[in-house]
Formats: sequence, C-alpha cells, structure tokens
Amino acid sequence: MTVPSHITAAAQAAPSTPALVVDADTLDRNIARMAAAGRAGGFALRPHAKTHKCPQIAEKQLAAGAVGLTVATIGEAEAFAAGGVTDLFIAYPLWLDDGKQRRLAKLAAGARVQVGVDSVENARRIAGTGASVLIEIDSGHHRTGVRPGEAGALARAASELGLTVDGVFTFPGHGTAHAANATPTDVRAQAARDQEAALTEAAASLRDAGIEPTVVSGGSTPTAALRGDGQINELRPGVYVFNDAMQVALGSCTVEDVALAAAATVVSVPAADRFVLDAGSKVLGADPNAWSPGYGLVPAYPGSKVVQLSEHHAVVQLPPGVTAPRHGDRVVIIPNHVCNAVNLAAELVIVREGRHVESWPVAARGANS
Amino acid sequence: MTVPSHITAAAQAAPSTPALVVDADTLDRNIARMAAAGRAGGFALRPHAKTHKCPQIAEKQLAAGAVGLTVATIGEAEAFAAGGVTDLFIAYPLWLDDGKQRRLAKLAAGARVQVGVDSVENARRIAGTGASVLIEIDSGHHRTGVRPGEAGALARAASELGLTVDGVFTFPGHGTAHAANATPTDVRAQAARDQEAALTEAAASLRDAGIEPTVVSGGSTPTAALRGDGQINELRPGVYVFNDAMQVALGSCTVEDVALAAAATVVSVPAADRFVLDAGSKVLGADPNAWSPGYGLVPAYPGSKVVQLSEHHAVVQLPPGVTAPRHGDRVVIIPNHVCNAVNLAAELVIVREGRHVESWPVAARGANS
Repeated sequence: MTVPSHITAAAQAAPSTPALVVDADTLDRNIARMAAAGRAGGFALRPHAKTHKCPQIAEKQLAAGAVGLTVATIGEAEAFAAGGVTDLFIAYPLWLDDGKQRRLAKLAAGARVQVGVDSVENARRIAGTGASVLIEIDSGHHRTGVRPGEAGALARAASELGLTVDGVFTFPGHGTAHAANATPTDVRAQAARDQEAALTEAAASLRDAGIEPTVVSGGSTPTAALRGDGQINELRPGVYVFNDAMQVALGSCTVEDVALAAAATVVSVPAADRFVLDAGSKVLGADPNAWSPGYGLVPAYPGSKVVQLSEHHAVVQLPPGVTAPRHGDRVVIIPNHVCNAVNLAAELVIVREGRHVESWPVAARGANS
Repeated sequence: MTVPSHITAAAQAAPSTPALVVDADTLDRNIARMAAAGRAGGFALRPHAKTHKCPQIAEKQLAAGAVGLTVATIGEAEAFAAGGVTDLFIAYPLWLDDGKQRRLAKLAAGARVQVGVDSVENARRIAGTGASVLIEIDSGHHRTGVRPGEAGALARAASELGLTVDGVFTFPGHGTAHAANATPTDVRAQAARDQEAALTEAAASLRDAGIEPTVVSGGSTPTAALRGDGQINELRPGVYVFNDAMQVALGSCTVEDVALAAAATVVSVPAADRFVLDAGSKVLGADPNAWSPGYGLVPAYPGSKVVQLSEHHAVVQLPPGVTAPRHGDRVVIIPNHVCNAVNLAAELVIVREGRHVESWPVAARGANS
C-alpha cells in the first residue's frame, strides 16, 4: 500500500482536528469516472446521496449526467429538494404515518418522487400521495424486498391501489459480506450475478402481470463495475464519491481513490509500538470492516491496526520495528464505512491542492425520519 | 426479561419514528439514585456529560448534588459553559494546537477547568491556559494514561511547567470487556479493584513527589456500585442517566432502569420469523455488545436478536413460535451504547407518564473538537 499524498496533504490543511477532509480533485475524478462508466455501459446513474448528504456534491453528480438522486428517508429527500433536486427515489420500504403521508405528498407536488415498496400494507399508505413506486427485490442480502417471482403480484396489487409502478430495484448488499474460502472479488462478482438474475426474473414477473418495468435498478459501489449484459438500466452507487477502508479491502478502489479521510492528532503515545488519535467512534463510526480487522485504515503506517476504538480515541498498534509518531503529529485515518462517518460531522473540510478552500455543511445529517 | 411498560409507553408518545425517547420519571430516578450512592459512599459525583450532551440533564445532575461535569472535548465544555456550568473536567489527554489553546484559555477565564494529561509534551501546551490538570492513570484498559508508579514524575514535571496538579484519574473501561470463563459481575469487580489499586498507588506516587492529590477520580457506570474503601473521592459515571443494552447485559442495571430507547416502526415483514425496523446504525450507532450478540435489544420480543444492522434498517430475528408484529407497529429498540446513539440525534423526545411533554436539543452533538 502506498501512502496517498493527496489525502495526507488534505489532512494537513484542516484548521483543527478531528475533522473530515475531502480532497476535491479526487472527489471530482471519482464522480467523472462513474459517470463515464454509465455512459459506456448504457445505464442511467442515480447515485445514493446518503453517503454525502451534501447539495454541493449532488450538484456535481447531476452536472455529470446523473438522472436524479437516490435517498433513504423523506428527510433526506426534503433536504435535497430544498437544494433544487427535482427527481428523487426514496429506496426504502417506507411505512407512512399520517405526518409522513403529508410530507411525501408535499414533496411529490414539487418533484418527481419514487418510493420503494415490498408489501401491500405499505403500498396502501403511499397511494394518493402522488409518488410512484418501485418493487423492492431481495437478491440475496435478505434484508427487505420480495422474492423475484413475487414481484408481479405485488406490482399488480399496487397498481390496483392506484399507484404507478415504475419497475423493480434491489440492493446487493451481500456483495460486501465476508465469506470464508472466497476472495472479495468472488463475493462481489457473485452479488453482481445474483442482482442481475433477480432483477431479470422480477422484470419478467412484472411483464407477466401486465406491467412493463421502465426502471430496472441495481446498487452499488462494489458491484457497479461488474454489471452484466442483462436488463439493468439504472445503478445507484453511493460510496464511490469518497470511497472508504471497506472499498479498499474489497478491491473496488485503491487508496489513491479515497477522497475523504479523518484528519486526527496524536494525543498519546503510551508505548513504543502504540499511539492514540483523537478520532474515535463519534468521528469514524463504529462499523467493523468485514474484510480487514481494525476500526479504520492508517495508510501512513502500513501493517498498523486500529485495535481499540472509543468515542474519542483510536488506539493504533504498530508492527515491529516501526517508530511511532510524536505527540501533536497529524495522522490520516480512513473510516471503514464513510456513510456513517459523514453523518457524524457538521461539515466537510474541502481541500484543493493542499489548501482549505471551502467547508460544506452536511445538510441532511441526521435526517433519519 | 419483563417487557418494560414505561419505555413502551414513551415510544408510543413519539410524534414519528425513528426517534430517541426518554422516559422522564426513569431518568429522574436514575439521577437521584446515583446522587444518593455518592452521599452514602462519601464520594463526589462528576457525571460524564458525553452521554447526554444536554444542558437540561446537566442541570438535573447538578441540582442533585454533582460537584461539576466531566466532558471529553473542548467543544463539549464550551456547550455546557454556555449553559451556565462553571466546573468542568475535560477527562482527555488534549493536545492543544494554537486554536485550542485560545479556546481553552477562554473557557478557563469563565469557569474552573481541569484537563487530563498523560505526557509532558501535552502538559507543555496546557501551561499558561489557566486550566489545572489531573494525571491520567492506566488501570488496565490500556488506552491512554501512565502507569500508576509514573504518576509522581509526570506530576512533578507538570508542576515545574507551572501547572497546578489537582490529582489523578482513571477510566476502568476494561470493566465492560468480554472475557471467557468470567461473568460480567467478575469482570466489573476486577475492573473496580484494578481502578482502586491503580489510583491508590498513583496517589502515593504523587505524594512521594511532594504533591498532595486533592482529587482521586474513577469511572464509571458498571463499576460505580463496586467502589471499595480506598482513596477514591470522586466518580465520573455517564451512562447511568439513560442506561443501555450493554449495561443490562453487564448487570449494572435492569431493563426497568432503561430511560432512553429508540422508537421504531415495522417497515417490512419479509418472513414469518423476521421483521425490519426503521432504526439502523444512523439512529442506534453500530457498537457491538461485548456480552450479548446483536445490535440492540428488543425487549417486547424475548429471545429475539437484531441480526443485521444497516444505516436505516434493523433486521430482527424471532425465536421459534413467536408471531411477528405487523407493518406499521411501533416497536422499542434499546441501543447497545447509548452515548453514540444520542450523538446521532438532533433532539430527545421527553415523555412523562406516556405524554410527549418536551423535546430537548442534543446541544453538544458532534462537538468532537
């Protein structure tokens, strides 16, 4: 692993620590690369904005050709609609209480709004809001979603409730799960195949029920490059704008493609082979990394491991023979899962060519409802 | 495990979900009980406010007799100072950059401020700010802190830098760690003994160096009830105001003592023995529970397990023979680690006798720097 100079320089430019720094050139390159992949592959891009929660980044994605945004909650949709986005897919099986029915109707009055659905019960409460729906398919992640062959019956029922069914979608989240006797590449490839097969079967199920799916939508950053030649015509990757330690471990990017990291300061050196940084779970999130032990990646110290994570401490264990940094040194730590790290920050420190040029508020931070 | 009716009623009172609800009567009782333990045990109480980040709760703690607050960052100290708190201990080995030196000096001009220190390097930058220091001791958690016998030398050096050394402190964080062949009670008791022994030795080390420790300060919620008859004269528990699934598993409280929980809605029932709630890692935090598998506790379904946690989904697996709730049902989930859950919320929904009476902003949310 090389020590990525771009992110080290970005960390040095942060006014204080802990802070989440973004190297703007790497961000721009990541956005351009995924947009080019969409054009080359003939699929529409609807990036998941839960990763960045930032209207400034949404604007870059839309300018690069994204057809709209994906979000996870009505609150996120409201934040981006307030930022001028007019095409939003809430990729979540919302159950609408009365307040959420009103909020969704208000959103749908000012933008094109699609909502995920995996039950008649939830569909019943979406009917009449003005939102259209996509049937959620379980392609192997076993979280939410119906089996592919059940898609047509649910689409039919939703249609009978007066809802417009735009198509089908899935999230192949099992493409990041650890599996014994398999490489990350195997796991990603299998998830991509599962997604393709499930969506193809689900689309056929809709047609059998007399509904033509205009949208056949898949995830995700780890599987985006592995799309087959099936019927998927839209992808919803999120993490690719920043990348993270999980994506590095999965092989879906290199450390050079990591655009966001925590700038941290060495606050304690309790032993010759151990040091402590001021970025803990309240900065990085507490997500484990399925493919690599430790609570984050410290690229300046190859072979090091974040062995302990408290709310405000990351304890870094060094391999033999490596000299620890000194008190006050600034050290970069790459979060395991960038989406949860960003959601913890009030703002992102934007750095271009090693200079702090702007700070962007995380506008949809904590918009969980 | 009984189904705690107070927290179920609180969850029903939340205007929407996901939301963090607080049963005010349970909160008041938890605060009163720890205050009574302090009076009975003859120790000062300086509760850690990182748990609640809420001036309203700090006020209750101080009214019940707390001598001041503990916080983890300058930002948290600033938030509570703005709320009128005049005695603050930043229990963290701060390394002060120039900006933080100015902020600390400003704080110390308006309040009594103590700071943790475990190195001469960090002490050097605290000198001149007006803050006094406590020497941090490693009592077995192996995070930060010096060995007990080294406390005197560091205190001497700090004193020679012009700093007032008020005493010694430790955090016995190993009192929550899982250990094979030991019960939670064993582990908590061992951590309490380690803390007592380490602080006693450290206090002696200060005296040998000619410095009388006026403060001998220990943690924590799991060890608070296990304090021995040694020299500890101050405790800094934090979690006890709310409690959480970790404390229930540790046996430091029962489910009846849990004052805060996430109110969640069933959004999907993908199988007869599985349902999905709208509270994920962006509501609960992603902390594991060292003593119990799963990402939170669902007390209404004994034997259930949160087997999968995404940003906006908690997948709950039911034991055989239990009927799943229906779409739209409201279900309580108790976070594993309440400190990280609170830090994710903009506000807490305060419920008294089943009625939503107030909402309190999490004023120091994200104050990591």
